[in-house]
Amino acid sequence: MPSPTIKGTTRGYVIPIGGGEEKFENPEILAKFVALSGGTDAVITVIPTASQLDDTGQRYQKIFEEIGVKKTYSLPITERSDAQNADYVKTLEKSTGIFITGGNQLRLSTILGGTPIAKTIRQLNAQGVNYAGTSAGAAIVSQHMITGGTTGIVPTEDGVNLAPGMGLINTIVVDQHFNERNRLSRLLSAVSYNPFLIGVGLDEDTAAFIDHNNEFTVVGSGAITVVDPSDIEYSSMAEARRGDALTLLNLKVHILAAGGRFNIGERKAYVN
Amino acid sequence: MPSPTIKGTTRGYVIPIGGGEEKFENPEILAKFVALSGGTDAVITVIPTASQLDDTGQRYQKIFEEIGVKKTYSLPITERSDAQNADYVKTLEKSTGIFITGGNQLRLSTILGGTPIAKTIRQLNAQGVNYAGTSAGAAIVSQHMITGGTTGIVPTEDGVNLAPGMGLINTIVVDQHFNERNRLSRLLSAVSYNPFLIGVGLDEDTAAFIDHNNEFTVVGSGAITVVDPSDIEYSSMAEARRGDALTLLNLKVHILAAGGRFNIGERKAYVN
Repeated sequence: MPSPTIKGTTRGYVIPIGGGEEKFENPEILAKFVALSGGTDAVITVIPTASQLDDTGQRYQKIFEEIGVKKTYSLPITERSDAQNADYVKTLEKSTGIFITGGNQLRLSTILGGTPIAKTIRQLNAQGVNYAGTSAGAAIVSQHMITGGTTGIVPTEDGVNLAPGMGLINTIVVDQHFNERNRLSRLLSAVSYNPFLIGVGLDEDTAAFIDHNNEFTVVGSGAITVVDPSDIEYSSMAEARRGDALTLLNLKVHILAAGGRFNIGERKAYVN
Repeated sequence: MPSPTIKGTTRGYVIPIGGGEEKFENPEILAKFVALSGGTDAVITVIPTASQLDDTGQRYQKIFEEIGVKKTYSLPITERSDAQNADYVKTLEKSTGIFITGGNQLRLSTILGGTPIAKTIRQLNAQGVNYAGTSAGAAIVSQHMITGGTTGIVPTEDGVNLAPGMGLINTIVVDQHFNERNRLSRLLSAVSYNPFLIGVGLDEDTAAFIDHNNEFTVVGSGAITVVDPSDIEYSSMAEARRGDALTLLNLKVHILAAGGRFNIGERKAYVN
Protein backbone atom coordinates (compact mmCIF):
# COMPACT_ATOMS: atom_id res chain seq x y z
CA MET A 1 0.00 0.00 0.00
CA PRO A 2 1.23 3.53 -0.69
CA SER A 3 2.33 5.55 2.31
CA PRO A 4 -0.65 7.54 3.68
CA THR A 5 -0.82 11.20 2.66
CA ILE A 6 -0.72 13.84 5.36
CA LYS A 7 -3.63 16.23 5.74
CA GLY A 8 -3.04 19.30 3.61
CA THR A 9 -0.54 17.65 1.25
CA THR A 10 -1.17 16.15 -2.16
CA ARG A 11 0.54 12.97 -3.32
CA GLY A 12 3.24 13.48 -5.95
CA TYR A 13 3.14 12.01 -9.42
CA VAL A 14 4.16 8.39 -9.90
CA ILE A 15 5.67 8.06 -13.39
CA PRO A 16 6.63 4.60 -14.64
CA ILE A 17 8.49 4.76 -17.98
CA GLY A 18 8.85 1.79 -20.36
CA GLY A 19 12.61 2.22 -20.91
CA GLY A 20 14.66 3.80 -23.67
CA GLU A 21 13.39 7.33 -22.95
CA GLU A 22 16.92 8.72 -22.64
CA LYS A 23 18.01 7.82 -26.17
CA PHE A 24 16.33 10.85 -27.71
CA GLU A 25 17.70 14.32 -28.30
CA ASN A 26 14.60 15.88 -26.82
CA PRO A 27 13.65 13.63 -23.94
CA GLU A 28 9.95 14.65 -23.77
CA ILE A 29 9.12 12.39 -20.84
CA LEU A 30 12.04 13.47 -18.64
CA ALA A 31 11.40 17.13 -19.53
CA LYS A 32 7.79 16.81 -18.41
CA PHE A 33 8.88 15.13 -15.16
CA VAL A 34 11.25 18.07 -14.58
CA ALA A 35 8.56 20.64 -15.39
CA LEU A 36 6.19 19.04 -12.85
CA SER A 37 9.00 19.00 -10.27
CA GLY A 38 9.80 22.71 -10.41
CA GLY A 39 11.47 23.21 -13.78
CA THR A 40 14.93 24.79 -13.52
CA ASP A 41 14.38 25.03 -9.75
CA ALA A 42 13.72 21.30 -9.45
CA VAL A 43 16.02 19.21 -7.28
CA ILE A 44 16.34 15.79 -8.90
CA THR A 45 17.94 12.85 -7.11
CA VAL A 46 18.93 9.85 -9.19
CA ILE A 47 19.13 6.36 -7.68
CA PRO A 48 21.09 4.13 -10.09
CA THR A 49 20.99 1.02 -7.89
CA ALA A 50 19.35 -1.22 -10.52
CA SER A 51 22.23 -0.66 -12.93
CA GLN A 52 25.58 -2.41 -12.72
CA LEU A 53 27.28 0.34 -14.72
CA ASP A 54 29.36 2.87 -12.79
CA ASP A 55 28.29 5.91 -14.78
CA THR A 56 24.51 5.46 -14.89
CA GLY A 57 23.87 8.01 -12.13
CA GLN A 58 26.14 10.63 -13.71
CA ARG A 59 24.68 10.00 -17.14
CA TYR A 60 21.18 10.82 -15.89
CA GLN A 61 22.44 13.82 -13.88
CA LYS A 62 23.83 15.16 -17.15
CA ILE A 63 20.54 14.57 -18.97
CA PHE A 64 18.62 16.45 -16.25
CA GLU A 65 21.17 19.26 -16.30
CA GLU A 66 20.80 19.54 -20.07
CA ILE A 67 17.05 19.91 -19.54
CA GLY A 68 17.92 22.86 -17.28
CA VAL A 69 17.83 21.45 -13.76
CA LYS A 70 20.32 23.36 -11.59
CA LYS A 71 20.51 20.90 -8.70
CA THR A 72 20.91 17.17 -9.25
CA TYR A 73 22.25 14.41 -7.02
CA SER A 74 23.07 10.78 -7.57
CA LEU A 75 23.09 8.34 -4.65
CA PRO A 76 25.67 5.57 -5.16
CA ILE A 77 23.68 2.88 -3.38
CA THR A 78 25.05 -0.52 -4.37
CA GLU A 79 24.33 -2.58 -1.25
CA ARG A 80 21.89 -2.65 1.66
CA SER A 81 24.22 -0.83 4.04
CA ASP A 82 24.30 2.15 1.62
CA ALA A 83 20.51 2.28 1.83
CA GLN A 84 20.78 2.89 5.61
CA ASN A 85 23.13 5.88 5.11
CA ALA A 86 21.66 8.89 6.95
CA ASP A 87 23.45 11.35 4.66
CA TYR A 88 21.83 9.79 1.62
CA VAL A 89 18.45 10.06 3.33
CA LYS A 90 19.11 13.76 4.01
CA THR A 91 20.03 14.36 0.36
CA LEU A 92 16.89 12.53 -0.74
CA GLU A 93 14.78 14.77 1.50
CA LYS A 94 15.91 17.84 -0.48
CA SER A 95 14.42 16.40 -3.70
CA THR A 96 11.41 17.68 -5.59
CA GLY A 97 11.76 14.71 -7.94
CA ILE A 98 13.23 11.24 -7.44
CA PHE A 99 14.39 9.17 -10.42
CA ILE A 100 15.26 5.45 -10.39
CA THR A 101 17.12 4.14 -13.44
CA GLY A 102 16.84 0.88 -15.34
CA GLY A 103 18.76 -2.30 -14.72
CA ASN A 104 17.58 -5.28 -12.69
CA GLN A 105 14.44 -4.74 -10.62
CA LEU A 106 15.49 -7.53 -8.24
CA ARG A 107 18.49 -5.38 -7.31
CA LEU A 108 16.06 -2.63 -6.36
CA SER A 109 13.83 -4.84 -4.24
CA THR A 110 16.67 -6.76 -2.58
CA ILE A 111 18.88 -3.72 -1.90
CA LEU A 112 16.27 -1.04 -1.15
CA GLY A 113 13.38 -3.10 0.23
CA GLY A 114 12.55 -2.19 3.83
CA THR A 115 15.45 0.31 4.22
CA PRO A 116 15.31 3.98 5.31
CA ILE A 117 15.82 4.98 1.67
CA ALA A 118 12.74 3.03 0.50
CA LYS A 119 10.71 4.35 3.42
CA THR A 120 11.78 7.92 2.62
CA ILE A 121 10.86 7.55 -1.06
CA ARG A 122 7.40 6.32 -0.06
CA GLN A 123 6.88 9.13 2.47
CA LEU A 124 8.20 11.88 0.17
CA ASN A 125 5.93 10.73 -2.65
CA ALA A 126 2.96 10.78 -0.26
CA GLN A 127 3.93 14.36 0.66
CA GLY A 128 4.07 15.63 -2.91
CA VAL A 129 7.51 14.73 -4.28
CA ASN A 130 7.31 13.25 -7.79
CA TYR A 131 8.68 9.80 -8.51
CA ALA A 132 9.79 8.69 -11.98
CA GLY A 133 11.45 5.42 -12.85
CA THR A 134 12.40 3.78 -16.10
CA SER A 135 12.42 0.06 -16.89
CA ALA A 136 13.41 -1.58 -13.55
CA GLY A 137 12.57 1.77 -11.92
CA ALA A 138 9.08 1.47 -13.44
CA ALA A 139 8.55 -2.16 -12.42
CA ILE A 140 9.31 -1.36 -8.78
CA VAL A 141 6.43 1.14 -8.40
CA SER A 142 3.79 -1.57 -8.11
CA GLN A 143 3.13 -3.55 -4.98
CA HIS A 144 3.25 -6.76 -7.04
CA MET A 145 6.28 -6.51 -9.31
CA ILE A 146 7.00 -8.61 -12.41
CA THR A 147 10.55 -9.98 -12.31
CA GLY A 148 10.41 -12.36 -15.26
CA GLY A 149 8.20 -14.60 -17.34
CA THR A 150 7.35 -15.93 -20.76
CA THR A 151 7.27 -13.85 -23.92
CA GLY A 152 4.43 -13.98 -26.40
CA ILE A 153 0.70 -13.41 -26.22
CA VAL A 154 -0.95 -16.37 -24.52
CA PRO A 155 -0.75 -16.60 -20.70
CA THR A 156 0.18 -19.81 -18.90
CA GLU A 157 -0.13 -21.08 -15.35
CA ASP A 158 3.57 -20.40 -14.73
CA GLY A 159 3.94 -17.52 -17.18
CA VAL A 160 5.17 -14.87 -14.75
CA ASN A 161 7.34 -14.43 -11.66
CA LEU A 162 6.23 -11.87 -9.10
CA ALA A 163 8.05 -10.27 -6.17
CA PRO A 164 7.01 -7.53 -3.76
CA GLY A 165 7.75 -4.08 -5.21
CA MET A 166 7.95 -0.67 -3.55
CA GLY A 167 4.18 -0.21 -3.57
CA LEU A 168 4.01 3.45 -4.54
CA ILE A 169 0.80 2.44 -6.20
CA ASN A 170 -1.53 -0.45 -5.59
CA THR A 171 -4.03 -2.22 -7.91
CA ILE A 172 -1.79 -2.01 -10.99
CA VAL A 173 1.02 -4.24 -12.11
CA VAL A 174 3.50 -2.61 -14.47
CA ASP A 175 5.51 -4.13 -17.29
CA GLN A 176 8.05 -2.34 -19.51
CA HIS A 177 9.67 -2.72 -22.96
CA PHE A 178 6.17 -4.06 -23.58
CA ASN A 179 5.69 -4.07 -27.34
CA GLU A 180 9.41 -4.36 -28.03
CA ARG A 181 9.81 -7.56 -25.98
CA ASN A 182 6.35 -9.07 -26.53
CA ARG A 183 5.34 -9.24 -22.90
CA LEU A 184 1.56 -9.57 -23.07
CA SER A 185 1.65 -13.22 -21.97
CA ARG A 186 3.38 -12.44 -18.70
CA LEU A 187 1.13 -9.44 -17.99
CA LEU A 188 -1.97 -11.56 -18.65
CA SER A 189 -0.55 -14.29 -16.42
CA ALA A 190 -0.03 -11.71 -13.65
CA VAL A 191 -3.52 -10.19 -13.76
CA SER A 192 -5.17 -13.59 -13.97
CA TYR A 193 -3.55 -14.66 -10.68
CA ASN A 194 -5.79 -12.12 -8.98
CA PRO A 195 -8.10 -9.99 -11.12
CA PHE A 196 -8.09 -7.09 -8.67
CA LEU A 197 -4.89 -6.15 -10.51
CA ILE A 198 -4.93 -4.00 -13.64
CA GLY A 199 -2.09 -4.70 -16.06
CA VAL A 200 -0.23 -1.69 -17.45
CA GLY A 201 2.20 -2.52 -20.26
CA LEU A 202 4.52 0.36 -21.14
CA ASP A 203 6.28 0.57 -24.49
CA GLU A 204 9.74 2.08 -24.67
CA ASP A 205 9.85 5.91 -24.66
CA THR A 206 6.36 5.88 -23.18
CA ALA A 207 5.25 6.83 -19.67
CA ALA A 208 2.16 6.85 -17.49
CA PHE A 209 1.96 10.11 -15.55
CA ILE A 210 -0.18 8.96 -12.62
CA ASP A 211 -1.64 11.91 -10.69
CA HIS A 212 -2.94 12.12 -7.13
CA ASN A 213 -6.44 11.24 -8.38
CA ASN A 214 -5.11 7.87 -9.54
CA GLU A 215 -5.57 8.83 -13.16
CA PHE A 216 -2.79 8.66 -15.72
CA THR A 217 -2.03 10.38 -19.00
CA VAL A 218 0.14 8.76 -21.65
CA VAL A 219 3.25 10.67 -22.74
CA GLY A 220 5.76 9.50 -25.34
CA SER A 221 6.10 7.89 -28.74
CA GLY A 222 4.67 4.42 -28.04
CA ALA A 223 1.53 3.10 -26.41
CA ILE A 224 0.36 1.80 -23.06
CA THR A 225 -1.63 -1.40 -23.12
CA VAL A 226 -4.10 -1.63 -20.24
CA VAL A 227 -5.46 -5.07 -19.40
CA ASP A 228 -8.51 -4.93 -17.12
CA PRO A 229 -9.57 -8.38 -15.93
CA SER A 230 -12.34 -7.17 -13.62
CA ASP A 231 -15.14 -8.48 -15.87
CA ILE A 232 -13.52 -11.90 -16.41
CA GLU A 233 -16.29 -14.50 -16.61
CA TYR A 234 -14.07 -17.54 -16.40
CA SER A 235 -10.39 -18.28 -15.80
CA SER A 236 -8.78 -21.72 -15.89
CA MET A 237 -5.80 -20.52 -13.81
CA ALA A 238 -6.67 -22.50 -10.69
CA GLU A 239 -7.01 -25.81 -12.56
CA ALA A 240 -4.32 -25.37 -15.21
CA ARG A 241 -1.21 -27.48 -15.14
CA ARG A 242 2.30 -26.06 -15.47
CA GLY A 243 2.85 -24.70 -18.98
CA ASP A 244 -0.79 -25.15 -20.05
CA ALA A 245 -2.33 -22.40 -22.16
CA LEU A 246 -4.99 -20.66 -20.07
CA THR A 247 -8.61 -19.93 -20.88
CA LEU A 248 -9.65 -16.39 -19.92
CA LEU A 249 -13.07 -15.14 -20.96
CA ASN A 250 -13.97 -11.47 -21.27
CA LEU A 251 -10.84 -9.45 -20.73
CA LYS A 252 -11.10 -5.74 -21.38
CA VAL A 253 -8.13 -4.21 -23.20
CA HIS A 254 -7.31 -0.59 -24.01
CA ILE A 255 -4.42 0.54 -26.19
CA LEU A 256 -3.54 4.13 -25.34
CA ALA A 257 -1.21 6.28 -27.42
CA ALA A 258 0.01 9.75 -26.36
CA GLY A 259 -2.77 11.80 -24.78
CA GLY A 260 -4.84 8.76 -23.82
CA ARG A 261 -5.95 8.67 -20.20
CA PHE A 262 -6.96 5.95 -17.75
CA ASN A 263 -8.58 6.30 -14.36
CA ILE A 264 -7.28 3.43 -12.23
CA GLY A 265 -9.96 3.70 -9.54
CA GLU A 266 -12.84 3.82 -12.00
CA ARG A 267 -11.10 1.45 -14.46
CA LYS A 268 -12.14 3.74 -17.27
CA ALA A 269 -10.17 4.83 -20.38
CA TYR A 270 -10.60 8.21 -22.03
CA VAL A 271 -9.19 10.36 -24.79
CA ASN A 272 -8.92 14.17 -24.68
CA MET B 1 -19.63 -14.28 -48.48
CA PRO B 2 -19.81 -18.06 -48.14
CA SER B 3 -21.58 -19.92 -50.94
CA PRO B 4 -25.30 -20.30 -50.07
CA THR B 5 -26.35 -23.64 -48.63
CA ILE B 6 -28.93 -25.69 -50.53
CA LYS B 7 -32.21 -26.57 -48.84
CA GLY B 8 -31.87 -29.86 -47.01
CA THR B 9 -28.06 -29.74 -46.74
CA THR B 10 -25.92 -28.59 -43.82
CA ARG B 11 -22.75 -26.61 -44.29
CA GLY B 12 -19.54 -28.57 -43.62
CA TYR B 13 -17.02 -27.66 -40.96
CA VAL B 14 -14.51 -24.90 -41.65
CA ILE B 15 -11.33 -25.73 -39.71
CA PRO B 16 -8.51 -23.19 -39.73
CA ILE B 17 -5.36 -24.57 -38.03
CA GLY B 18 -2.51 -22.38 -36.74
CA GLY B 19 0.28 -24.42 -38.37
CA GLY B 20 2.66 -27.07 -37.05
CA GLU B 21 -0.13 -29.61 -36.41
CA GLU B 22 1.61 -32.29 -38.47
CA LYS B 23 4.77 -32.40 -36.36
CA PHE B 24 3.19 -34.62 -33.70
CA GLU B 25 3.06 -38.39 -33.50
CA ASN B 26 -0.64 -38.31 -32.73
CA PRO B 27 -2.01 -35.49 -34.84
CA GLU B 28 -5.16 -34.83 -32.78
CA ILE B 29 -6.48 -32.08 -35.01
CA LEU B 30 -6.08 -33.95 -38.28
CA ALA B 31 -7.56 -37.10 -36.68
CA LYS B 32 -10.63 -35.14 -35.58
CA PHE B 33 -10.99 -33.65 -39.09
CA VAL B 34 -10.86 -37.19 -40.49
CA ALA B 35 -13.39 -38.49 -37.96
CA LEU B 36 -15.85 -35.73 -38.90
CA SER B 37 -15.29 -36.51 -42.59
CA GLY B 38 -16.19 -40.20 -42.44
CA GLY B 39 -13.31 -41.79 -40.54
CA THR B 40 -11.65 -44.60 -42.47
CA ASP B 41 -14.26 -44.09 -45.22
CA ALA B 42 -13.35 -40.42 -45.60
CA VAL B 43 -12.07 -39.21 -48.95
CA ILE B 44 -9.50 -36.49 -48.30
CA THR B 45 -8.16 -34.29 -51.09
CA VAL B 46 -5.03 -32.29 -50.36
CA ILE B 47 -4.29 -29.03 -52.19
CA PRO B 48 -0.60 -28.18 -51.65
CA THR B 49 -0.62 -25.03 -53.82
CA ALA B 50 0.64 -22.69 -51.08
CA SER B 51 3.82 -24.73 -50.67
CA GLN B 52 6.81 -24.52 -52.99
CA LEU B 53 8.01 -27.97 -51.94
CA ASP B 54 7.34 -30.86 -54.33
CA ASP B 55 6.45 -33.42 -51.68
CA THR B 56 4.00 -31.45 -49.51
CA GLY B 57 0.91 -33.10 -51.03
CA GLN B 58 2.35 -36.61 -50.69
CA ARG B 59 3.50 -35.91 -47.15
CA TYR B 60 -0.03 -35.02 -46.06
CA GLN B 61 -1.53 -37.97 -47.99
CA LYS B 62 0.77 -40.19 -45.93
CA ILE B 63 -0.31 -38.54 -42.66
CA PHE B 64 -3.98 -39.04 -43.52
CA GLU B 65 -3.32 -42.66 -44.53
CA GLU B 66 -1.56 -43.26 -41.20
CA ILE B 67 -4.69 -41.95 -39.47
CA GLY B 68 -6.58 -44.65 -41.39
CA VAL B 69 -8.05 -42.89 -44.40
CA LYS B 70 -8.28 -45.31 -47.30
CA LYS B 71 -8.78 -42.79 -50.10
CA THR B 72 -6.62 -39.68 -50.41
CA TYR B 73 -5.78 -37.45 -53.35
CA SER B 74 -3.39 -34.60 -53.89
CA LEU B 75 -4.01 -32.06 -56.63
CA PRO B 76 -0.74 -30.71 -58.06
CA ILE B 77 -2.05 -27.22 -58.77
CA THR B 78 0.90 -24.88 -59.20
CA GLU B 79 -0.52 -22.29 -61.62
CA ARG B 80 -3.88 -20.81 -62.61
CA SER B 81 -4.32 -23.11 -65.62
CA ASP B 82 -4.13 -26.12 -63.27
CA ALA B 83 -7.00 -24.63 -61.28
CA GLN B 84 -9.19 -24.77 -64.41
CA ASN B 85 -8.48 -28.51 -64.94
CA ALA B 86 -11.83 -30.35 -65.16
CA ASP B 87 -10.28 -33.63 -63.98
CA TYR B 88 -9.07 -31.96 -60.80
CA VAL B 89 -12.57 -30.56 -60.24
CA LYS B 90 -14.01 -34.07 -60.66
CA THR B 91 -11.54 -35.49 -58.12
CA LEU B 92 -12.37 -32.69 -55.72
CA GLU B 93 -16.09 -33.52 -56.01
CA LYS B 94 -15.45 -37.01 -54.62
CA SER B 95 -14.08 -35.54 -51.36
CA THR B 96 -15.70 -35.69 -47.94
CA GLY B 97 -12.86 -33.50 -46.65
CA ILE B 98 -10.65 -30.92 -48.37
CA PHE B 99 -7.28 -29.95 -46.90
CA ILE B 100 -5.14 -26.97 -47.93
CA THR B 101 -1.54 -26.99 -46.71
CA GLY B 102 0.69 -24.20 -45.46
CA GLY B 103 3.06 -22.06 -47.50
CA ASN B 104 2.30 -18.62 -48.88
CA GLN B 105 -1.34 -17.51 -48.72
CA LEU B 106 -0.78 -15.12 -51.64
CA ARG B 107 -0.06 -18.18 -53.79
CA LEU B 108 -3.48 -19.50 -52.79
CA SER B 109 -5.35 -16.29 -53.56
CA THR B 110 -3.47 -15.51 -56.78
CA ILE B 111 -3.54 -19.07 -58.16
CA LEU B 112 -6.94 -20.31 -56.93
CA GLY B 113 -8.92 -17.04 -56.71
CA GLY B 114 -11.94 -17.02 -59.04
CA THR B 115 -11.13 -20.43 -60.63
CA PRO B 116 -13.39 -23.51 -60.92
CA ILE B 117 -11.36 -25.13 -58.11
CA ALA B 118 -12.09 -22.25 -55.70
CA LYS B 119 -15.74 -22.18 -56.74
CA THR B 120 -16.03 -25.95 -56.19
CA ILE B 121 -14.43 -25.75 -52.73
CA ARG B 122 -16.94 -23.06 -51.74
CA GLN B 123 -19.91 -25.02 -53.13
CA LEU B 124 -18.82 -28.35 -51.63
CA ASN B 125 -18.36 -26.76 -48.20
CA ALA B 126 -21.84 -25.24 -48.46
CA GLN B 127 -23.17 -28.73 -49.25
CA GLY B 128 -21.57 -30.42 -46.25
CA VAL B 129 -17.98 -31.22 -47.22
CA ASN B 130 -15.51 -30.31 -44.47
CA TYR B 131 -12.69 -27.88 -45.14
CA ALA B 132 -9.46 -27.81 -43.10
CA GLY B 133 -6.43 -25.69 -43.80
CA THR B 134 -3.23 -25.07 -41.92
CA SER B 135 -1.23 -21.84 -41.81
CA ALA B 136 -1.73 -20.32 -45.31
CA GLY B 137 -4.65 -22.75 -45.70
CA ALA B 138 -6.14 -21.23 -42.52
CA ALA B 139 -5.57 -17.60 -43.55
CA ILE B 140 -7.43 -18.14 -46.84
CA VAL B 141 -10.76 -19.14 -45.16
CA SER B 142 -11.66 -15.57 -44.28
CA GLN B 143 -13.06 -13.07 -46.74
CA HIS B 144 -10.49 -10.52 -45.56
CA MET B 145 -7.15 -12.33 -45.40
CA ILE B 146 -4.00 -11.17 -43.61
CA THR B 147 -0.97 -11.40 -45.89
CA GLY B 148 1.60 -9.61 -43.74
CA GLY B 149 2.16 -6.98 -41.12
CA THR B 150 4.05 -5.91 -38.04
CA THR B 151 4.92 -8.17 -35.14
CA GLY B 152 4.36 -7.20 -31.52
CA ILE B 153 1.38 -6.14 -29.49
CA VAL B 154 0.51 -2.55 -30.33
CA PRO B 155 -1.43 -1.91 -33.58
CA THR B 156 -0.44 0.84 -36.02
CA GLU B 157 -2.14 2.61 -38.91
CA ASP B 158 -0.18 0.53 -41.43
CA GLY B 159 0.26 -2.56 -39.24
CA VAL B 160 -1.34 -5.12 -41.53
CA ASN B 161 -1.74 -5.98 -45.21
CA LEU B 162 -5.05 -7.47 -46.31
CA ALA B 163 -6.08 -9.25 -49.49
CA PRO B 164 -9.34 -10.97 -50.47
CA GLY B 165 -9.43 -14.57 -49.24
CA MET B 166 -11.65 -17.49 -50.22
CA GLY B 167 -14.51 -16.32 -48.01
CA LEU B 168 -15.63 -19.67 -46.60
CA ILE B 169 -16.53 -17.65 -43.57
CA ASN B 170 -17.33 -13.99 -43.14
CA THR B 171 -17.04 -11.67 -40.10
CA ILE B 172 -13.80 -13.22 -38.85
CA VAL B 173 -10.23 -12.55 -39.85
CA VAL B 174 -7.82 -15.38 -39.10
CA ASP B 175 -4.16 -15.25 -38.17
CA GLN B 176 -1.83 -18.21 -37.54
CA HIS B 177 1.43 -19.01 -35.70
CA PHE B 178 -0.13 -16.44 -33.42
CA ASN B 179 1.65 -16.76 -30.09
CA GLU B 180 4.81 -18.15 -31.69
CA ARG B 181 5.28 -15.17 -34.03
CA ASN B 182 3.76 -12.43 -31.83
CA ARG B 183 1.05 -11.36 -34.23
CA LEU B 184 -1.39 -9.50 -31.99
CA SER B 185 -0.43 -6.10 -33.44
CA ARG B 186 -1.37 -7.09 -36.98
CA LEU B 187 -4.63 -8.74 -35.86
CA LEU B 188 -5.57 -5.63 -33.85
CA SER B 189 -4.69 -3.45 -36.84
CA ALA B 190 -6.97 -5.60 -39.04
CA VAL B 191 -10.02 -5.52 -36.75
CA SER B 192 -9.65 -1.82 -36.12
CA TYR B 193 -9.90 -1.09 -39.86
CA ASN B 194 -13.52 -2.18 -39.62
CA PRO B 195 -14.85 -3.43 -36.27
CA PHE B 196 -17.46 -5.70 -37.88
CA LEU B 197 -14.53 -8.13 -38.07
CA ILE B 198 -13.69 -10.49 -35.20
CA GLY B 199 -10.00 -11.37 -34.94
CA VAL B 200 -9.15 -15.05 -34.45
CA GLY B 201 -5.48 -15.72 -33.65
CA LEU B 202 -4.55 -19.39 -33.86
CA ASP B 203 -1.49 -20.78 -32.10
CA GLU B 204 0.46 -23.60 -33.70
CA ASP B 205 -1.06 -27.08 -33.23
CA THR B 206 -4.38 -25.39 -32.46
CA ALA B 207 -7.55 -25.31 -34.55
CA ALA B 208 -11.00 -23.73 -34.57
CA PHE B 209 -13.61 -26.32 -35.57
CA ILE B 210 -16.30 -23.97 -36.90
CA ASP B 211 -19.66 -25.75 -37.25
CA HIS B 212 -22.71 -24.89 -39.36
CA ASN B 213 -24.11 -22.82 -36.48
CA ASN B 214 -21.10 -20.52 -36.77
CA GLU B 215 -19.77 -21.68 -33.41
CA PHE B 216 -16.28 -23.03 -32.96
CA THR B 217 -14.59 -25.35 -30.47
CA VAL B 218 -10.87 -25.16 -29.77
CA VAL B 219 -8.85 -28.34 -30.39
CA GLY B 220 -5.09 -28.69 -29.85
CA SER B 221 -2.27 -27.85 -27.50
CA GLY B 222 -2.22 -24.04 -27.77
CA ALA B 223 -4.83 -21.32 -27.49
CA ILE B 224 -7.01 -19.21 -29.73
CA THR B 225 -7.05 -15.49 -29.01
CA VAL B 226 -10.34 -13.86 -29.97
CA VAL B 227 -10.35 -10.09 -30.37
CA ASP B 228 -13.85 -8.63 -30.47
CA PRO B 229 -13.83 -4.92 -31.32
CA SER B 230 -17.61 -4.53 -31.46
CA ASP B 231 -17.78 -2.48 -28.24
CA ILE B 232 -14.89 -0.17 -29.19
CA GLU B 233 -15.65 3.29 -27.82
CA TYR B 234 -12.89 5.13 -29.66
CA SER B 235 -10.32 4.35 -32.34
CA SER B 236 -7.69 6.74 -33.65
CA MET B 237 -7.27 4.70 -36.86
CA ALA B 238 -8.83 7.27 -39.18
CA GLU B 239 -6.63 10.15 -37.93
CA ALA B 240 -3.40 8.25 -37.24
CA ARG B 241 -0.33 8.85 -39.34
CA ARG B 242 1.73 6.04 -40.88
CA GLY B 243 3.53 4.09 -38.16
CA ASP B 244 1.77 5.86 -35.28
CA ALA B 245 0.72 3.76 -32.32
CA LEU B 246 -3.08 3.62 -32.26
CA THR B 247 -5.48 4.36 -29.45
CA LEU B 248 -8.26 1.76 -29.14
CA LEU B 249 -10.62 1.91 -26.19
CA ASN B 250 -12.62 -1.04 -24.91
CA LEU B 251 -11.56 -4.09 -26.85
CA LYS B 252 -12.93 -7.40 -25.67
CA VAL B 253 -10.44 -10.28 -25.65
CA HIS B 254 -10.90 -13.97 -24.96
CA ILE B 255 -8.09 -16.50 -24.66
CA LEU B 256 -9.45 -19.97 -25.34
CA ALA B 257 -7.52 -23.16 -24.68
CA ALA B 258 -8.71 -26.65 -25.72
CA GLY B 259 -12.44 -27.10 -25.16
CA GLY B 260 -13.18 -23.39 -25.21
CA ARG B 261 -15.99 -22.32 -27.52
CA PHE B 262 -16.95 -19.13 -29.33
CA ASN B 263 -20.17 -18.30 -31.11
CA ILE B 264 -19.26 -15.98 -33.96
CA GLY B 265 -22.81 -14.74 -34.62
CA GLU B 266 -23.52 -13.98 -30.97
CA ARG B 267 -19.90 -12.91 -30.27
CA LYS B 268 -19.99 -14.94 -27.07
CA ALA B 269 -17.28 -17.14 -25.52
CA TYR B 270 -18.05 -20.24 -23.47
CA VAL B 271 -16.40 -23.12 -21.72
CA ASN B 272 -17.86 -26.63 -21.48
